Amino acid sequence: LSAAAHFAIDVHSHVVPEYLPAYLGARRPANWPETVDAPESRGLCHRHVMINGKHFRTVSEKSWKGTRRLTDLPAMGLTAQVISPMPELLSYWLAPGDAQPLLRYLNEHTAQMCAQFPGRLLGLGAVALQDIDLAIDELRYCVRELNLVGVELGSNINGVVIGDMRFDPFFEACEALNAVVFVHALKPTGMDRLFGPPALQQVLAYASEIGLAAASVITSNLMLRRPKLRIAFSHGGGSLAMLLPRLQQGWQAFPAIREAVLEAPVSQARRLFFDTLVFDAATLRHLAHVFGTDQLMIGTDYPFNFSEQAPLKRLAEAGFDERTQAHLAWHNAERFLGREIAALRPNFTQGST
Amino acid sequence: LSAAAHFAIDVHSHVVPEYLPAYLGARRPANWPETVDAPESRGLCHRHVMINGKHFRTVSEKSWKGTRRLTDLPAMGLTAQVISPMPELLSYWLAPGDAQPLLRYLNEHTAQMCAQFPGRLLGLGAVALQDIDLAIDELRYCVRELNLVGVELGSNINGVVIGDMRFDPFFEACEALNAVVFVHALKPTGMDRLFGPPALQQVLAYASEIGLAAASVITSNLMLRRPKLRIAFSHGGGSLAMLLPRLQQGWQAFPAIREAVLEAPVSQARRLFFDTLVFDAATLRHLAHVFGTDQLMIGTDYPFNFSEQAPLKRLAEAGFDERTQAHLAWHNAERFLGREIAALRPNFTQGST
Repeated sequence: LSAAAHFAIDVHSHVVPEYLPAYLGARRPANWPETVDAPESRGLCHRHVMINGKHFRTVSEKSWKGTRRLTDLPAMGLTAQVISPMPELLSYWLAPGDAQPLLRYLNEHTAQMCAQFPGRLLGLGAVALQDIDLAIDELRYCVRELNLVGVELGSNINGVVIGDMRFDPFFEACEALNAVVFVHALKPTGMDRLFGPPALQQVLAYASEIGLAAASVITSNLMLRRPKLRIAFSHGGGSLAMLLPRLQQGWQAFPAIREAVLEAPVSQARRLFFDTLVFDAATLRHLAHVFGTDQLMIGTDYPFNFSEQAPLKRLAEAGFDERTQAHLAWHNAERFLGREIAALRPNFTQGST
Repeated sequence: LSAAAHFAIDVHSHVVPEYLPAYLGARRPANWPETVDAPESRGLCHRHVMINGKHFRTVSEKSWKGTRRLTDLPAMGLTAQVISPMPELLSYWLAPGDAQPLLRYLNEHTAQMCAQFPGRLLGLGAVALQDIDLAIDELRYCVRELNLVGVELGSNINGVVIGDMRFDPFFEACEALNAVVFVHALKPTGMDRLFGPPALQQVLAYASEIGLAAASVITSNLMLRRPKLRIAFSHGGGSLAMLLPRLQQGWQAFPAIREAVLEAPVSQARRLFFDTLVFDAATLRHLAHVFGTDQLMIGTDYPFNFSEQAPLKRLAEAGFDERTQAHLAWHNAERFLGREIAALRPNFTQGST
């Protein structure tokens, strides 16, 4: 067995609580999310997630039940997992005062799952980034009170791309609190360029969106301002690997870009982390070439249907040597998370169930 | 010298006439384009292209003067070049009756340049695809009367992506007339995700846009309906190479996508042509892996500033063997164009100047 086969951390997996809190204000917003009963299927409890009164997705108990998750991890070759809310629950589109109690509920729920499996599950919080002060307060609560390792952010906040300078105070707080950031595609641009069924939103527009979001972090010099920040992008950075050489050339060709972007785009890209969720060995190899073998970490999108079932097999298929496989499987994730993962230590004993 | 060094065809280069026609109707549209005098620079005549009364780009005589172009080609290692209008002149946003005389002027201008250098310059026409019948009529005129080899199309027509079924009658006509199609990024989606100077439109949003446009041609099964059509995409297909493995996996995971897309996306992608305009040898190698070495052709964006100066050097840097270099440099372009290029024949003598 290779080193990679011994330990592996998945940094991209999601949580949906079985129940979402009732709205406690006077007038429930139309887009307040809820979950409702769905028929049991394949021996698993299911819930429908309803958004705007419409069915958004059906999720199984894998989404909320830690014990079930801990059974699935070894089957996928995983030792530990970072869990974050299903992005459509991030609620940037609600009034901040409405979003806050919902996100607090999600954060408590995530923290409880992690507490049940210490050293195996690590949690990312959700913050109302439509109100930066509120978001910083909740970030502090997530890190200090709930022991979450950082936050999941959408790739845009109500249409404002995540690299926009207005979010800088939040990233400053992340750096100060040693909180990691995982940026996930959400409400993507480019929907007007899809031809085909609605699922193309996730399949094509998400990859396009997260690529532009990662590019925005480069063109705004985020990592030069916040050099200790540890920030990762979902879906292998989406289109970024293809945009980057053109951005690099444009940086050389256009004085205005050269003036705005203070370090070569290809160098700035190598200060970012990316997951491996690209579903193709050759593409993974290309990502390793573009971003470096130190910046990639396993991502699966567990427990959703459209997910990577055998992430370690993909690493092996890509032909990485054992040392590189170990980096992609867990060393890089430990560096990203800024801590040793207990489950990876030889003397670690399984947490309580 | 390698085979590639002997012959090379550039399929992506642009033309801007020195003068654009005056508007002959009663009320000139605000967005009617014009060119105005610009100071001579580096020994070259220049013109400002004005759109909506604002300066859009300054272009030099390389944009309209065939003799100047024919001097530059050998310096870039090129034998022949396909020329097409600067995409911002495609005029989908004008009333069809206004666009038609402007596009006819462009097409006559392109045809004249080609006639001056037979066998060295080949032309792509422009058609008012906002009116499909008019576009088919002009396509026929371009091919039959002007000896143009096909058309350049924008990646979207007033926001409707080029793979949309409503354009199918036009592609049917292209197939029937043996006219090639070169799809160029234009008025891109995702502008709301850029952070930085306006030039990022070309640099980032173009690559994102053309990737989604190429994907739309796959999800609408264009090449299954029109198997003899020869269609190419600019900028190496932009983001497509990164979107494709995810689309392939989504095709396997979502029944609705499987039902809509009638052949595996990775197979359909290999029925399309792409230029090599990616500014990076490793990326070019990855494109060759994803799309196949038979589907790539040199593209430079000559004569604009943001262009590939040494396309053959890039092929060599990518480490392709001589046979593959020859395919990328000219065999594939001949196959795409559906004809032998006179300049490549041993007994060819230079056309008149």
